[in-house]
Amino acid sequence: MDEFAFIDAIKQHTYKQPSIIKGVGDDAAVFRQSAQDIVTAVDTFVEDVHFSRATMKPFHIGYRALAANTSDLSAMGAVPAFYLVSIVIPESWNEDELKGIYKGMAELGNTYKMDLIGGDTVSGKELSLSITVFGYVNRNKARYRNAAKPGDVVFTTGTLGDSAAGFFMLTNPGEYIDKAFYYRRHRMPSINADFASELEFLPRLALNDISDGLANEASEIAEASQVSLTVYEEQVPVSTHFGQFRDDQQFKWKMFGGEDFELIGTVPKKSWEDVKQIADLTQTQVTEIGHVENSDDSGSDVFLVDRGQTKKRLEKKGYTHLKQVKR
Amino acid sequence: MDEFAFIDAIKQHTYKQPSIIKGVGDDAAVFRQSAQDIVTAVDTFVEDVHFSRATMKPFHIGYRALAANTSDLSAMGAVPAFYLVSIVIPESWNEDELKGIYKGMAELGNTYKMDLIGGDTVSGKELSLSITVFGYVNRNKARYRNAAKPGDVVFTTGTLGDSAAGFFMLTNPGEYIDKAFYYRRHRMPSINADFASELEFLPRLALNDISDGLANEASEIAEASQVSLTVYEEQVPVSTHFGQFRDDQQFKWKMFGGEDFELIGTVPKKSWEDVKQIADLTQTQVTEIGHVENSDDSGSDVFLVDRGQTKKRLEKKGYTHLKQVKR
Repeated sequence: MDEFAFIDAIKQHTYKQPSIIKGVGDDAAVFRQSAQDIVTAVDTFVEDVHFSRATMKPFHIGYRALAANTSDLSAMGAVPAFYLVSIVIPESWNEDELKGIYKGMAELGNTYKMDLIGGDTVSGKELSLSITVFGYVNRNKARYRNAAKPGDVVFTTGTLGDSAAGFFMLTNPGEYIDKAFYYRRHRMPSINADFASELEFLPRLALNDISDGLANEASEIAEASQVSLTVYEEQVPVSTHFGQFRDDQQFKWKMFGGEDFELIGTVPKKSWEDVKQIADLTQTQVTEIGHVENSDDSGSDVFLVDRGQTKKRLEKKGYTHLKQVKR
Repeated sequence: MDEFAFIDAIKQHTYKQPSIIKGVGDDAAVFRQSAQDIVTAVDTFVEDVHFSRATMKPFHIGYRALAANTSDLSAMGAVPAFYLVSIVIPESWNEDELKGIYKGMAELGNTYKMDLIGGDTVSGKELSLSITVFGYVNRNKARYRNAAKPGDVVFTTGTLGDSAAGFFMLTNPGEYIDKAFYYRRHRMPSINADFASELEFLPRLALNDISDGLANEASEIAEASQVSLTVYEEQVPVSTHFGQFRDDQQFKWKMFGGEDFELIGTVPKKSWEDVKQIADLTQTQVTEIGHVENSDDSGSDVFLVDRGQTKKRLEKKGYTHLKQVKR
């Protein structure tokens, strides 16, 4: 495969974002943003660690990878703008499959008016995809994890555990209700870009995206804000047919599953009505799932009140991507 | 290895760049730049494709990877500002080695006042390092490859072929003159950030960094600008003891070797004195190596006038990083 022909095939010929001065085609991309703050993040997805061709088409791999990164922008309250892609290509992938990955990214990109402005293609032993995303947020309006305060309402968007359920269905073939819904939640997760940016007028909001599981993300807010979060199990929102799975599966997926790319946030009680209004406006499901308290002597923790009304400390147990490295 | 402990060990606790609002520690980094244009690029380096532990310590791998990316900023005329790092970590690398990579990046970063503002650590089968760099350039002053015009002087910075010579010495142990110099040119290439940005006042300048070999980079300028470049072999600058190698090695390394991360540029004749003055000021070696002509009917080419004064078409033959992918 010829690198230049490949780049020519995947590159955009026009850009939707007026801030782009130079996209693909030189040593680097150039953009201008004098009015707003710029938000940027990178994430890498490795074959057979973060995704598998057994459960996803190349299109889904690209779509989901860009969705995961764009979700980080939403978690900052930023509006997505553009992205860079660096791809490591092994011999086992052909040109059509690779183009499929870029088509998946372009599909999500079109939905959120994002442009591909540059990148890199190199060869290697395993396919990996590094995406750097850029978004804009009004000055001093980026939303941080450290903004939670005692008394806040804790909420999440959407329903949790669907991506993990979808992955289970794909890897354990059988009779399930609403397969297409769960497959889609796993392969083509939606992100809450509009909802997050429309909350801009709120004076205070802590925000995090649920990439590594509710327990883990709640814990990040608790630690960064030096508070404790209490979550009520029966309030954690799940999809209509989530009850078809065993109780232990439901619990594991909704608390620790992650990769739904929904948002968890905390706001002062007086802002909760505003959050619900913006949710209506942006057609986003929001659910109050708990509240913020002072952290106790033992530190900043997350507590779960289970269905039997027992309150217990919740372990993070989120999916951490770095497990196999020797010390 | 614990991901969070590792991130804590490598993260900066203060930032040198005043434009950084939020660095490591949330879903994304935030910065503000209202006066200048923002330049950004990403490159990925894969073990045993772009570097090897046989010839470089982890420190060098990090240093060189960030130098290569920062060189793209220089090629745009931009001043380096900060970077994101996404690393794929296989089991065969231990924590000290990984920290060595980040120390190497920090060393180069300190030299150019660059901050590490975020990133990602994931596991995989082979080590790869994706670096996204950010730099600033005054409005409409980014330097593009398409700015060359007939009559321009073609110049390069530094000496060419040293990195390839250093790699040869490292992989073919023997008696050589100035080993340390060539090793360093391969492992810790210098970049021309000050020189490139100080040329800002020039009304027109085409610029490219020599990552893939002089022939290849000259060809990129020729194609983007729709001109032809003629280069005189005897004018191509080489290091003092480059003559210790065979003629065919010298030719291959200086024309196609790349990875010296020197710059190739073209300027109107009337600007050439200015370029030399800025070179003096920034202690940069510059050499006039040729000139720009109208492209002929067969397209935009690079011609080489060899030592026998014969003019011939120069093949690109630069190192292209994507060679093994099946169609």
